[in-house]
Amino acid sequence: MSASPPMAPDRAIRVPLPSPFALMAGGRLVGAEVAMETYGRLNPARDNALLLFTGLSASAHAASHPSDPSNGWWEAMIGPGKALDTEQFFVISVNSLGSCFGSTGPGSIDPTTGQPYGDRFPELRIEDIARASQAAVDALGIEQLAGVIGMSLGGMTALAHAACFPGRARSLVSISGAVAATASAIATRSLQREIVGTALRSGAGPEAVNQAMRLARKIGVMSYVGSELLEKRFGREQSEPYAGRGSGTDFEVENWLDHLATKFARQFEPWSYWALSRAMDLFDFGRVGDTSQDPSNPPQVAKTLQLARALIIGVKEDLLFPVAQQQAIATLLTTAGITTDYIELSSPSGHDAFLTEAGLFTPVLSQFLNSLAHPTPTLNEARSAICA
Amino acid sequence: MSASPPMAPDRAIRVPLPSPFALMAGGRLVGAEVAMETYGRLNPARDNALLLFTGLSASAHAASHPSDPSNGWWEAMIGPGKALDTEQFFVISVNSLGSCFGSTGPGSIDPTTGQPYGDRFPELRIEDIARASQAAVDALGIEQLAGVIGMSLGGMTALAHAACFPGRARSLVSISGAVAATASAIATRSLQREIVGTALRSGAGPEAVNQAMRLARKIGVMSYVGSELLEKRFGREQSEPYAGRGSGTDFEVENWLDHLATKFARQFEPWSYWALSRAMDLFDFGRVGDTSQDPSNPPQVAKTLQLARALIIGVKEDLLFPVAQQQAIATLLTTAGITTDYIELSSPSGHDAFLTEAGLFTPVLSQFLNSLAHPTPTLNEARSAICA
Repeated sequence: MSASPPMAPDRAIRVPLPSPFALMAGGRLVGAEVAMETYGRLNPARDNALLLFTGLSASAHAASHPSDPSNGWWEAMIGPGKALDTEQFFVISVNSLGSCFGSTGPGSIDPTTGQPYGDRFPELRIEDIARASQAAVDALGIEQLAGVIGMSLGGMTALAHAACFPGRARSLVSISGAVAATASAIATRSLQREIVGTALRSGAGPEAVNQAMRLARKIGVMSYVGSELLEKRFGREQSEPYAGRGSGTDFEVENWLDHLATKFARQFEPWSYWALSRAMDLFDFGRVGDTSQDPSNPPQVAKTLQLARALIIGVKEDLLFPVAQQQAIATLLTTAGITTDYIELSSPSGHDAFLTEAGLFTPVLSQFLNSLAHPTPTLNEARSAICA
Repeated sequence: MSASPPMAPDRAIRVPLPSPFALMAGGRLVGAEVAMETYGRLNPARDNALLLFTGLSASAHAASHPSDPSNGWWEAMIGPGKALDTEQFFVISVNSLGSCFGSTGPGSIDPTTGQPYGDRFPELRIEDIARASQAAVDALGIEQLAGVIGMSLGGMTALAHAACFPGRARSLVSISGAVAATASAIATRSLQREIVGTALRSGAGPEAVNQAMRLARKIGVMSYVGSELLEKRFGREQSEPYAGRGSGTDFEVENWLDHLATKFARQFEPWSYWALSRAMDLFDFGRVGDTSQDPSNPPQVAKTLQLARALIIGVKEDLLFPVAQQQAIATLLTTAGITTDYIELSSPSGHDAFLTEAGLFTPVLSQFLNSLAHPTPTLNEARSAICA
């Protein structure tokens, strides 16, 4: 069992969730909270807020700010004059419910037992992450967001938010997201969960769990970046003579993966990883908020969204969230009458491009966000919410 | 430690290797042998033999024959009137040295200890596999092969054979092979070896090793087949209601991988897997037969080959041995003056296409093999062998 405490950046604000907080699949959390950071200022009309949904492994610390000057994971994109321009927008970044950087998750203490939830954390869905983050927005007294922005898992969360809270955001940006995972992405994440879950359940101790997390991260990195990047960066560069018998140290590419794996395993709560990974596989926009076995009907759900504008960004080299999925989101929203821009970028970083290609993403995001009309968009006709 | 005996098809012929058999990296095997099957008849001139080098996981049982009527792994391709036409050719299939289907490998008993070699099996190289297989050819009294044919690991072995034994084969067919592994392929196999090697060395017992082999196989299958195949075949098809908590059983794609993994783990010796996998990463045609750190010089080695004809086949959807690598082999051979055909096929089976796409491969192989002039090709000028 893992019993590591949530590793929260202490300067993130903790926002209490309504208690008990009912989860979509039936579970309930008592005394739960989410960690939040904000950048820029909420204007008097309270209509300039952008809500940011993160990828699986990120904390709420997306950018530096006076009380935490360390670089955030999207430092290049958030700030005065940057893509998410804090002179214009008030950016809200929330650590996903179920994660381990200050938000309640499997590593948190279950108040009913006094022990970390671990395996007993109730089944988490993407919709729950959207709802917990919206609670933070509610706490700030914001009626309508200028937009929601999410990447990877966060792209799914942005879509879930739009369906769960129609009219609460005027626009949506999805970067390398999905309406539902591909078979290949499911296979990859299932394998990662098998590795981590087996170690956690085996009782083999923290070293085995740490090794499992390292392996899962290596599989993750290899699914994020394109083979072209590995080839250009490492090729067959060797780190020591052939004579060594061990695996894992002959080639520089092995050392690089090892470094990333060690860093990740040190930071991330294993059961959080498991829960968030599974939530991604289970997400299906076509039956958002619905745990029944009803057939998935994405166009039907898309019709309920009340978005004025959407921007869908895909990366050609992304194999985990391939561009065909990005095109599918764009087509779905366009068909539902939402004015949607679709942009395909190219980067050897593949799924990770949003972290490494500020130069590519900045003009695309800037143009879209600058063009957003503030409070009076042409909304789709109002329809009732699906899972609010 | 794994102590499972080699699982040889009993009807394969065992060919003793010269004893001791010196390995390229310095080790020696005493009393080693390779398992061999043959199909068709050697003609009186002894010049109609094709030597087949297999992929990592295959046995010598490539096709059915009177003493073993079960289907072989290339059943659709070997036989009267088939691509490898046994009315015309005498096909020799050898289980790779280091494997576990009758050839000496890590699962075999080390005569110096009376125990299976396991981790103490001397470092294996692709060149050693080529040399052990050539010993089987020698045992049959064949001076010159009509051709060598290999796929995946076997494609590397065919290139190694051509360099180690110039003039001993008139032609070469490489299917989804490589001059040297890409960084991405190295990363994938290194991860598989880390999983299997950790379990083997942990002393955690056969169940942990079996689970490690299952995981490694899943990673393998996911690197062989294209995501398009998984999507078409499985999509998000579910095998049971969402409510289940375990990973690995929600989606049909997970069950399919599980089935393949279980089958493989039951058959394959873990240390054999480790040794063959590593041999693939270490192979470098540009310094074939050379364990020094000399710079790799593929064109220099290509000039020493004495092949009249070559056929290089790649599969567009193969990510593990991408078509860029196939083109590189073809360019290398063409530049060295060898008449080389290059064919790119397309199949959602990706790296596994040679196993599943008999309809695509048959005409390509038939045309090439039928056109081979029997005993009097125009050879490159003779040069001394590099590692014979």
